[in-house]
Amino acid sequence: MHFTKGHGTGNDFVILPDPDGRLELTPAIVAALCDRRRGIGADGVLRVVRAAKHPDAVGYADAAEWFMDYWNADGSLAEMCGNGTRVFTRYLTVNGLAEPVDGTLPLATRAGVVQVRAGAEEIAVDLGAPRITGRDVATVGGLTLAGTAVDCGNPHLVCPLPNSIELPSLDLTKAPGFDPAVFPTGVNVEFVTPAGPVEGADLHVLMRVHERGSGETLSCGSGACAVAAVALRDAGRTAGVVAVDVPGGRLTVTVDERSCWLAGPAVLVAHGEINLAALAV
Amino acid sequence: MHFTKGHGTGNDFVILPDPDGRLELTPAIVAALCDRRRGIGADGVLRVVRAAKHPDAVGYADAAEWFMDYWNADGSLAEMCGNGTRVFTRYLTVNGLAEPVDGTLPLATRAGVVQVRAGAEEIAVDLGAPRITGRDVATVGGLTLAGTAVDCGNPHLVCPLPNSIELPSLDLTKAPGFDPAVFPTGVNVEFVTPAGPVEGADLHVLMRVHERGSGETLSCGSGACAVAAVALRDAGRTAGVVAVDVPGGRLTVTVDERSCWLAGPAVLVAHGEINLAALAV
Repeated sequence: MHFTKGHGTGNDFVILPDPDGRLELTPAIVAALCDRRRGIGADGVLRVVRAAKHPDAVGYADAAEWFMDYWNADGSLAEMCGNGTRVFTRYLTVNGLAEPVDGTLPLATRAGVVQVRAGAEEIAVDLGAPRITGRDVATVGGLTLAGTAVDCGNPHLVCPLPNSIELPSLDLTKAPGFDPAVFPTGVNVEFVTPAGPVEGADLHVLMRVHERGSGETLSCGSGACAVAAVALRDAGRTAGVVAVDVPGGRLTVTVDERSCWLAGPAVLVAHGEINLAALAV
Repeated sequence: MHFTKGHGTGNDFVILPDPDGRLELTPAIVAALCDRRRGIGADGVLRVVRAAKHPDAVGYADAAEWFMDYWNADGSLAEMCGNGTRVFTRYLTVNGLAEPVDGTLPLATRAGVVQVRAGAEEIAVDLGAPRITGRDVATVGGLTLAGTAVDCGNPHLVCPLPNSIELPSLDLTKAPGFDPAVFPTGVNVEFVTPAGPVEGADLHVLMRVHERGSGETLSCGSGACAVAAVALRDAGRTAGVVAVDVPGGRLTVTVDERSCWLAGPAVLVAHGEINLAALAV
């Protein structure tokens, strides 16, 4: 089985080329591939399959040639992954599998067709305008922090830190507390502090994130979009460019009323062959 | 740069073929390769180089053709790694780089020349007889446990659990406490419970280990040897075979007065090419 390993700001993936949808992926194989010690190791698997060749995407085949068949590290299926679409696109362009038209490429996902823009350094994806839905509080290490609830397709709670608390000091080894009546299926919680000016951005913030089901991660694409939306609102703006530094690097989010472009590096680190018989399936 | 990824009971390595010692490895490159999200990810790097071609091993060149140039994940050099020698040997035999004589192969390491035995399923290495050196106590999660100090080239403290405490219940997210006067450079602490009979073994135990500098790991080869030595002594024996179940699988340790053979699976999971320019060096 061929594979490529890549990441976007530290959110990493095993990429499996399977243009004709012939690979018999199972949850057990995906979990074994993502096992960081006994497999390749990754946050998830991206199968590269033609939309026309996958039952979940055949309806999108007129709009997009390629389907990002995304699996979580535990073997479950997921609808979307912002950093995943960016790394997936890098794989397509590096391997000459897709040619952007006017710089833009449509990509099929389980959440529908998204648009991506592939540059030499950065790859951007339009995740759609975040919706600010209300207020709630998060508790972390004895602190209670006010936050803004944001819907990016998945639920987020964005908590700016008071000046007296430093971002690195937060203990995110345990899940933050939140109101389960507001977030019945759990919530991704972002903690945010302002940072100095960055060229090309209207605002600049630092964030850490605790993802439901994963714990603290190096990067969360939809989390960066939620953080950007709240930062712009708090600055009295409805549109603009926000540089969001996550632990794994810098994402740049460009928001207006209709779109939310998530841009950042997407790199392919290695490629080769997997010895399927050696996996701990 | 070519690479192979492999592991022995969950102790995993990036293997770099470099027969003529031409690769310019640096601590920064090793750390970037071992980065589990932005690199390949591993507990360490095994460079495969001819003893005659490496300044640290040229003195062993008459006794062993190949030198295991072992680096820790943080880029520091290490003298020995029991599971590393087993995975290194699998790499040599799978790729036809070495032919055992009477089933045995000498291997140069920074700790000297060791003997390995390569079977189809298991690979064994003689790590030398452990020396029981005294007694001490470890503290973990409010418990104080009596232990036996063992020197396997590196220091160990083997703590059998009382019947009232279950092995999975121990919290090893923090380093156990120990007497720094007894272990001035730190210590690897093993927690052990007896288990039911296993064919071909005189004794069978379960262990978990907290490795100095690494935290809890899935496997520790020298730790399994230390545990076997204490289990045999406690059973009134000076020699025998001990099956040691670590979280990553089963190791079998065969001890007598002169040797300590560590045996277990060693598998190669994937191989390919690394894009050096994409590493976070």
